Amino acid sequence: MSLLSIGTVAYDALETPFGKVDKIIGGSCTYIALSASYFTAKSNICAVIGDDFGQDNIDLLTDRGVDTEGLQIKEGEKSFFWSGKYHNDMNTRDTLVTELNVLENFDPVIPENYQDCEFLMLGNLTPSVQQTVIDRLTDRPKFIAMDTMNLWMDIMLDDLKSVLKSVDMLLVNDEEARQLTGEYSLVKAAKAIHELGPQYVIIKKGEHGALLFGEGRIFSAPALPLEDVFDPTGAGDTFAGGFMGYLAKTNDISFENMKRALIYGSAMASFCVEKFGPERLLDLSNDEIEDRVAQFVGLTNFDMEFKEGVR
Amino acid sequence: MSLLSIGTVAYDALETPFGKVDKIIGGSCTYIALSASYFTAKSNICAVIGDDFGQDNIDLLTDRGVDTEGLQIKEGEKSFFWSGKYHNDMNTRDTLVTELNVLENFDPVIPENYQDCEFLMLGNLTPSVQQTVIDRLTDRPKFIAMDTMNLWMDIMLDDLKSVLKSVDMLLVNDEEARQLTGEYSLVKAAKAIHELGPQYVIIKKGEHGALLFGEGRIFSAPALPLEDVFDPTGAGDTFAGGFMGYLAKTNDISFENMKRALIYGSAMASFCVEKFGPERLLDLSNDEIEDRVAQFVGLTNFDMEFKEGVR
Repeated sequence: MSLLSIGTVAYDALETPFGKVDKIIGGSCTYIALSASYFTAKSNICAVIGDDFGQDNIDLLTDRGVDTEGLQIKEGEKSFFWSGKYHNDMNTRDTLVTELNVLENFDPVIPENYQDCEFLMLGNLTPSVQQTVIDRLTDRPKFIAMDTMNLWMDIMLDDLKSVLKSVDMLLVNDEEARQLTGEYSLVKAAKAIHELGPQYVIIKKGEHGALLFGEGRIFSAPALPLEDVFDPTGAGDTFAGGFMGYLAKTNDISFENMKRALIYGSAMASFCVEKFGPERLLDLSNDEIEDRVAQFVGLTNFDMEFKEGVR
Repeated sequence: MSLLSIGTVAYDALETPFGKVDKIIGGSCTYIALSASYFTAKSNICAVIGDDFGQDNIDLLTDRGVDTEGLQIKEGEKSFFWSGKYHNDMNTRDTLVTELNVLENFDPVIPENYQDCEFLMLGNLTPSVQQTVIDRLTDRPKFIAMDTMNLWMDIMLDDLKSVLKSVDMLLVNDEEARQLTGEYSLVKAAKAIHELGPQYVIIKKGEHGALLFGEGRIFSAPALPLEDVFDPTGAGDTFAGGFMGYLAKTNDISFENMKRALIYGSAMASFCVEKFGPERLLDLSNDEIEDRVAQFVGLTNFDMEFKEGVR
């Protein structure tokens, strides 16, 4: 099945305790599409860049089989640029620069051959742009997931709530879930998000894994315990891309299959943090991915056959 | 098999956003012994109290089958007292009062009928007292686990490191593991702790669950996602008591069985936080415990039979 992803395709400047890069391909849509490309053969993107964006970077996407027909190139404009610096614990970062550039007037265009997409991943963008993409699809996709961020809760909460009514799943991190709902307990926060629209909720907890809520059930996936996190940039989007790519590949939106998708998404995120930017997502092998998934099985698997009852 | 637990038996005053109590039985040994009592029939304690400690509180332990022969009562002295206040997020707390009282000169006495204990849980206490208990056991127990805290790392690090050489497992929280080793990565921290002595390490992460390290393997157990945490006091000790009680009951220290013990410990901790102090640990039924363990299975279980390989 085909997956359509929207979000940013951008240049990032990154600094971590392990080094720095001044200019590397980034953006939510880049990470989502690259990660999903390991699962679904039809990974389409809808995004906007300026004419400063090198063809070599576009090739990184097309080489992975990503269809870039929906990638608009604005002549005479500059691509979205983000610069961030991570602290020593790698869990907190400072945003140094955000230049919207082409994003200021992003008017998403859906190519005709994207209209049959069954799965839609709305990466983090202005809520009104996310809504526009939904509105411009002739048929509602089978499954729509969205990401968002605290900024839109601060300045465009009504728009955000409006989009939430149209989607099947919200993927946010724990702090965003708490801000959106005013609930500290993630169980209560997920319930409050269900009431805003999404039947399914994924709450990402970074190094502590992720929780999936839906159908009155909860599934907890760990993150892989790592010796080193080289660069966390894009890990959340990579997770979302792996999750949605796996759903699209299997064309199965049962809760049981979402659990598997969560594990694949977590495995992809564990690769992402091993190198700068999306470097590690460019040349993974199927064996590497399956080996990583097997590590998750070993990490969480326990056998309760021993149940003799307690005293 | 029998379990010997040492630690504090104390009075606590607790304040949470849900209410307050001025005087309730507390202390690491209390929580460990009560939790373990649901698993092993032989739960022995070694601790000290003053003559202010009510017989009704001692009865709470003996009613659960805990052997209190090793509980010294110091005439004319007062029991250890701790008072704490939790913040709204329930993850941080302020210690308001700490009165050592009888703990200042605690000289642990091991009753003769405790000498055959196969499992020893050294709850958080001065490292030298933990060492004394090990030294006063004629035969080394089959498995020794210890807890500790940041205070001893600050003021008695050499003593602490000396005890670490004598134990099989250290159970600490994530911040303590980081402080002890200077490693932010919990994987690196666990490796550094192995080099200090313990072959097995459990790192507790509160609402994010716990990690077990040993034999070159890692197991990740989630915490149960809860709508409300009424009072987190004693949850870590309750976890340790459930873990060690299950090991003692099954007399099996394989890594596979430690995984199960970790789940039972996590289940017991999830009960502990439902009421003030140890109240919830006084009257659990076997069915309640098995139902809670089944919730952990549902929370973490996924089935990878669907593996068709990625693209």
